[in-house]
Amino acid sequence: MPGLDADAIDRVVEQIAFNDAGLVPAVAQQHDSGEVLMLAWMNAAALRETLTSGQVCYWSRSRRSLWRKGETSGNRQRLVELRFDCDRDALLLLVEQSGPACHTDRRSCFYHAVRDGDVRIVLEPSEAVS
Amino acid sequence: MPGLDADAIDRVVEQIAFNDAGLVPAVAQQHDSGEVLMLAWMNAAALRETLTSGQVCYWSRSRRSLWRKGETSGNRQRLVELRFDCDRDALLLLVEQSGPACHTDRRSCFYHAVRDGDVRIVLEPSEAVS
Repeated sequence: MPGLDADAIDRVVEQIAFNDAGLVPAVAQQHDSGEVLMLAWMNAAALRETLTSGQVCYWSRSRRSLWRKGETSGNRQRLVELRFDCDRDALLLLVEQSGPACHTDRRSCFYHAVRDGDVRIVLEPSEAVS
Repeated sequence: MPGLDADAIDRVVEQIAFNDAGLVPAVAQQHDSGEVLMLAWMNAAALRETLTSGQVCYWSRSRRSLWRKGETSGNRQRLVELRFDCDRDALLLLVEQSGPACHTDRRSCFYHAVRDGDVRIVLEPSEAVS
């Protein structure tokens, strides 16, 4: 993610349709393997910080504060490319994920699957996505 | 997606943490290529119908009705596998997408990218994802 100047960042942020709570859902995808790692939320400040630093920063709805992904765990997400959708109300973050994305120590948060008529855990901690 | 009986579907739906509006975000990903196609929303009825029919059905927030993806366009999404995340408040749909997923006739809705200091269109109508 090459650095953007402040005006360019403002032009990007202005295009996003944040919801009534000032948030937009952001899907993080490992840029080379295509793994979908997690879905979290950003407000304008989190998006602005992400574009400024190149390290993904979300908005924590539970803590009501900026959530600099990996700040304590070291499992950071480096932004490779930001994309957004036709309605401008969803973000796709192509990232380089360091370590597991999930707080359960799994590579991806999407480890529950409906298989064989029931919900199965298809990803164990510290494994690659099946 | 093998058929689930009504009890199994209820057990899945009961595990999902729908938001205050009764909705959950759902990310559709092409099951074999890994392309992220779109993000839309489901309520319990849409999720139940999707698991019953094996064809993806969303909830249209603008029309306030079930949205059987591809019902008019023919660009259906066959559900290959349903996954959900650690917090149970986001769905990942592994799908077989027929034709373009986006109403703009693009394969994916995520066709805006921040590149070279500006927003670029990186996917043209009826093209594969770059």
